[in-house]
Amino acid sequence: MTDELRAAVAWTGDAVEIIEQTLLPAEERILRLTTPEEVVDAIARLAVRGAPAIGICGAFGVVLAADQLGDDATVERLTETAAAVRNARPTAVNLAWAVDRVLGAARSAPDPKALRAAVEAEAVAILEEDVEACRLIGEHGRAELSHASTLLTLCNTGRLATGGWGTALGVVYAKAAAGEPVEVYACETRPLLQGARLTAWELQRAGIPVTVLTEGAAAALLARGGIDAVIVGADRVVANGDAANKIGTYGLAVAAHHHGVPFYVAVPRSTLDAATAQGADIDIEQRAGAEVRIAAGLPDDVAVWNPAFDVTPAALITAIISDAGVLRPPFEATIADALGTATAA
Amino acid sequence: MTDELRAAVAWTGDAVEIIEQTLLPAEERILRLTTPEEVVDAIARLAVRGAPAIGICGAFGVVLAADQLGDDATVERLTETAAAVRNARPTAVNLAWAVDRVLGAARSAPDPKALRAAVEAEAVAILEEDVEACRLIGEHGRAELSHASTLLTLCNTGRLATGGWGTALGVVYAKAAAGEPVEVYACETRPLLQGARLTAWELQRAGIPVTVLTEGAAAALLARGGIDAVIVGADRVVANGDAANKIGTYGLAVAAHHHGVPFYVAVPRSTLDAATAQGADIDIEQRAGAEVRIAAGLPDDVAVWNPAFDVTPAALITAIISDAGVLRPPFEATIADALGTATAA
Repeated sequence: MTDELRAAVAWTGDAVEIIEQTLLPAEERILRLTTPEEVVDAIARLAVRGAPAIGICGAFGVVLAADQLGDDATVERLTETAAAVRNARPTAVNLAWAVDRVLGAARSAPDPKALRAAVEAEAVAILEEDVEACRLIGEHGRAELSHASTLLTLCNTGRLATGGWGTALGVVYAKAAAGEPVEVYACETRPLLQGARLTAWELQRAGIPVTVLTEGAAAALLARGGIDAVIVGADRVVANGDAANKIGTYGLAVAAHHHGVPFYVAVPRSTLDAATAQGADIDIEQRAGAEVRIAAGLPDDVAVWNPAFDVTPAALITAIISDAGVLRPPFEATIADALGTATAA
Repeated sequence: MTDELRAAVAWTGDAVEIIEQTLLPAEERILRLTTPEEVVDAIARLAVRGAPAIGICGAFGVVLAADQLGDDATVERLTETAAAVRNARPTAVNLAWAVDRVLGAARSAPDPKALRAAVEAEAVAILEEDVEACRLIGEHGRAELSHASTLLTLCNTGRLATGGWGTALGVVYAKAAAGEPVEVYACETRPLLQGARLTAWELQRAGIPVTVLTEGAAAALLARGGIDAVIVGADRVVANGDAANKIGTYGLAVAAHHHGVPFYVAVPRSTLDAATAQGADIDIEQRAGAEVRIAAGLPDDVAVWNPAFDVTPAALITAIISDAGVLRPPFEATIADALGTATAA
């Protein structure tokens, strides 16, 4: 285990600094965002991604909006500017949750200066709470997966996706930190290859064995045997336990179910959305076909279906590993409990 | 429907001409192979691929071996040279089958000239039979799938994969030729993108609606509904009906099963291998990790699991559409019947 990796999002007092994730693993460039418009752009083009990380980034985007408004800052004006940040991506609940939370903190501020201070304090709290949530997810997951050493995952749910050491990968880091054997099979995650580009990169840096495979090979890997559990993150887990996550997750869940391999979703409570009843109600972001076409050099007139996320029904989820503990079915009750819990279990 | 596409493999009398498939869709270059070594190289690096097409290519590779031996040609020497052709790729049964068949035809030849003529005649027969097999697969498939218009497929099983109009895509072409509505969702097929590069290219040229998606999106597409059937080819179907095909096929079969969508495998009889009892006995080609790494710019020291094929157990296959008719479970009996059938059903 090494701590050499910087967090996905850092706050300098007047700017959000992120690792430009579209350039990894070829180049490690720090991007300095100083306006809410730059934050929106970075989130929209996935320079920063991962539900917790974009939530944190969005919260600081509101601080930058307050800076932009300066002496003209009011909660109303701030809410207007923050709308673009809030809507930069639709599927992850963390972004809207974080923006709403910092705006809420601004509500009682008597003047622009106090407003700016309140917004910043709340954004910093969100970042710090995420670091702690990741730590707790790791510990709860480590206890749950004490006999699982070989894990299959998709996309990136680690240091590059959160303010801390990650959600699903947080469990991996927690196992490694405790000296337990752990090995990861990482689906490359088409079309943007976050598994190959980001997960392999950060696990290799941390000295944790990682093997990359295509999504097409995942079912064959489960059939071959040796995978103790599948563990993924989520962008939104709704009231009944249905989970929206990176496209490809649902196929993994179906294949895991077919092979009797446990399937875990690891999330902080900020990803739980009790206000949405079921997966069918989640707005799934459709992204440009060009993301898929470019790899094969396809002309623009070839039709592409490119949803960024899919929904895994609760029935295929063994348990949800959260900072409030391991939530088991029936999820309706355990998710409500977790959200009612003020301190971590 | 248009016939403008040339076949994947053409014989000129002294050379095998193939479309260099690694360059599609960007460039349509004809590659002229004049030695068995060039044939082996073209098969190994997937310049020509598709089980029937590499079988045909391999058969003509033996003719080129006879040309190389000239007046020194004997069945023994030919068998020696042909071994490299036969072993260029291990999983598809058609290659070994075709090479053995042309060598068998050479056995009674009294002299080198007669040997060369016998080998060429047999290779031409294999090509012509494949064209006819594709036509029959198309017709049998069209009857079986008369109420299915929206099909999901993987890899390329069309004009670029066979001597004729294809196996799984042969069914699509047959439906289109009969004026029936047909639309294809084509999985891009990582890591070499045969679905995006080849299937989308040839279907678009034929005026058949095609939409490309990642393998990761396939289960979500099946969950969304609207897919009437999944239809794929195979590189080898063994005695009990287990089918080896492009990596990703098994995941599609599991997801189709989960959603109650019928799953078809379309093959000529040359792909049936009654000498192998079950899928577990099939030699699965492992290919270089670089095929996967290159897309993400991963360094060489990142481990990759890159099997070229997976095995779909017979229990997940609704029926096998062959030139001998539609084979249904129990496959042990229907496959044996099909191989015993001298003429098409």
